[in-house]
Amino acid sequence: MSEPPAGISVLPVEGLPEFTPGDDLAAAIADAAPWLADGDVVVVTSKAVSKVEGRLVHVPPGADREAMRLQAVEQEAVRVVARRGPLAIVETRQGWVVAAAGIDASNIGQDALVLLPEDADASARSLRARLGELLGVDVAVVVSDTFGRTWREGLTDVAVGAAGIPALTDHRGAVDAWGNRLETTRVAVVDELASAADLVKGKLSGVPVAVVRGLPVDRPEPDTGTRALVRRAADDLFPYGARDLVGARRPGTGLAARAGEREAVAQAFRVASSALPEFPVVLRHGGAGDGVVDVHLGDVPSLTTALNLGALLGAAIVQLHAEGWTTRWEPVGTPGGSSLVGRLWLGTPAS
Amino acid sequence: MSEPPAGISVLPVEGLPEFTPGDDLAAAIADAAPWLADGDVVVVTSKAVSKVEGRLVHVPPGADREAMRLQAVEQEAVRVVARRGPLAIVETRQGWVVAAAGIDASNIGQDALVLLPEDADASARSLRARLGELLGVDVAVVVSDTFGRTWREGLTDVAVGAAGIPALTDHRGAVDAWGNRLETTRVAVVDELASAADLVKGKLSGVPVAVVRGLPVDRPEPDTGTRALVRRAADDLFPYGARDLVGARRPGTGLAARAGEREAVAQAFRVASSALPEFPVVLRHGGAGDGVVDVHLGDVPSLTTALNLGALLGAAIVQLHAEGWTTRWEPVGTPGGSSLVGRLWLGTPAS
Repeated sequence: MSEPPAGISVLPVEGLPEFTPGDDLAAAIADAAPWLADGDVVVVTSKAVSKVEGRLVHVPPGADREAMRLQAVEQEAVRVVARRGPLAIVETRQGWVVAAAGIDASNIGQDALVLLPEDADASARSLRARLGELLGVDVAVVVSDTFGRTWREGLTDVAVGAAGIPALTDHRGAVDAWGNRLETTRVAVVDELASAADLVKGKLSGVPVAVVRGLPVDRPEPDTGTRALVRRAADDLFPYGARDLVGARRPGTGLAARAGEREAVAQAFRVASSALPEFPVVLRHGGAGDGVVDVHLGDVPSLTTALNLGALLGAAIVQLHAEGWTTRWEPVGTPGGSSLVGRLWLGTPAS
Repeated sequence: MSEPPAGISVLPVEGLPEFTPGDDLAAAIADAAPWLADGDVVVVTSKAVSKVEGRLVHVPPGADREAMRLQAVEQEAVRVVARRGPLAIVETRQGWVVAAAGIDASNIGQDALVLLPEDADASARSLRARLGELLGVDVAVVVSDTFGRTWREGLTDVAVGAAGIPALTDHRGAVDAWGNRLETTRVAVVDELASAADLVKGKLSGVPVAVVRGLPVDRPEPDTGTRALVRRAADDLFPYGARDLVGARRPGTGLAARAGEREAVAQAFRVASSALPEFPVVLRHGGAGDGVVDVHLGDVPSLTTALNLGALLGAAIVQLHAEGWTTRWEPVGTPGGSSLVGRLWLGTPAS
């Protein structure tokens, strides 16, 4: 039985301490992995980076940790993409679309929540430079986080920061052995590295760093980290969930007292959305007071959006009627200037 | 400088031949990798599997290869999820949501197109059994393909078939070191394996097989392959693109020559109009053919008109559904430029 050819190795960095704000992550890695060598890719879990950088929300004794978590998600999000029950898929300030803004309540004490690093590319560059100083090695660094995916169950690790390695390996314009031009083959190599590293890091084993050795890496110039992975809005075919109401929860809209109406409207829209999947639209609704639900068109009103919203509105009203509610639609302002389209008043269910 | 701890290795299988229908893939791998050992995970590019299984579309000399590719996408798709220009993201018969139904025109001669394997889990099971016979080893097998993702640029390899390994590593119910219960941590380990393998396989190097060594793998019982990765429709927040209205193209729905459709649509709009008097709109509709009704916005398209029309359209569709019709809405042209908004297709009433 012959020996296998040389491939790549994925090596755990064991014996790292628990990290707290202000710790020297690079020094800890250098201590635990003095065997680091030129060309290695050091993959660091974002949680370790966030801990040393103090990207934590402190949860005081007696505070509602879950409520604080939801509040932190709102603060980290620039946009809600989809919502279902307690799950919110949002776009973060860094441009990542991820459940709960990447905020995790696991692998941290009960007195804190961990946010994503503010700028994980900068974190990666800093870590790379410090490892170079400490060990005299030229390594690449990937900062990884665990994301879900559309259409596929299960989570995988992807890159949220990188330094010393191109995020995408660009095969566009290359020609395969048969003369076919590879038009769209750009491999997200830093995401594949994050996934490979996760195989040895695991989720419970307390190994936040792994090293990939043996992969030829070109040094990028300029070093733009993971920015190339962020899809431009114009290229995004899935900017919003198609069936789900994205409820903008605005504090102080006085929704508390008469929860029944809003829930009835939300449910009617959910039924309408699932019955009319061809009319995807994000509906943000919030109560303007008792028995009335504001219906917003969103920030980019267009004829198509208006048509789609109308289709769901009409179907929802039919559904409300079927459940015994009376309704009245009141246009508010002129669409085009304002994003506010109208109000849906609900009457007492017919008895 | 101490040595690194043992990790995992990702080893290329070099020297494999070009595969053609009927080739013995297992024998070729056994020849090229006699060093395979118990516990190894053999990751095989789906293209190699499809080639030996004859999952090819033959392109005759002089035929329009691109037209044949688009036709093959339609045939492999059960549902169009989103479309933009020549790009179609579809759900395949196997439940995968992927651009162009996973059909690739690269790494194959100009006289053929490669489809995804019909049942890559079965392919993986067969390959695993044959490798066991040939080499006396107990390996796992993953069949990989290259997929795009929502919200992130770049492609990564994921699993479309597996045998001898659980698709998901389930950490639900486990408790981390801080006492936090990990509610949703199910890692798609076969996808991470596919990504790790791609790091050594590359896209142009002609290495369709790699082996991951050193990962502890539990043998699943029963061995359900990759089925657990397919997200159920009820859990899918992104069943359709949000900006593009997409109709499911169901072949053989027999839309021709039924006189009742237009009258049914007209009646549904009459019912909708009387139920929703707040949405006054003059609806002009005329048949573009049997089983299809053109819906016009009128001569003064505005956001308000579009909303009103949409409300009637949605209510009318609900009415049609209540009467047993199936419907499909297809946008025609771009509102703003044209007053023509779309077509409403009617399917056979459910019986």
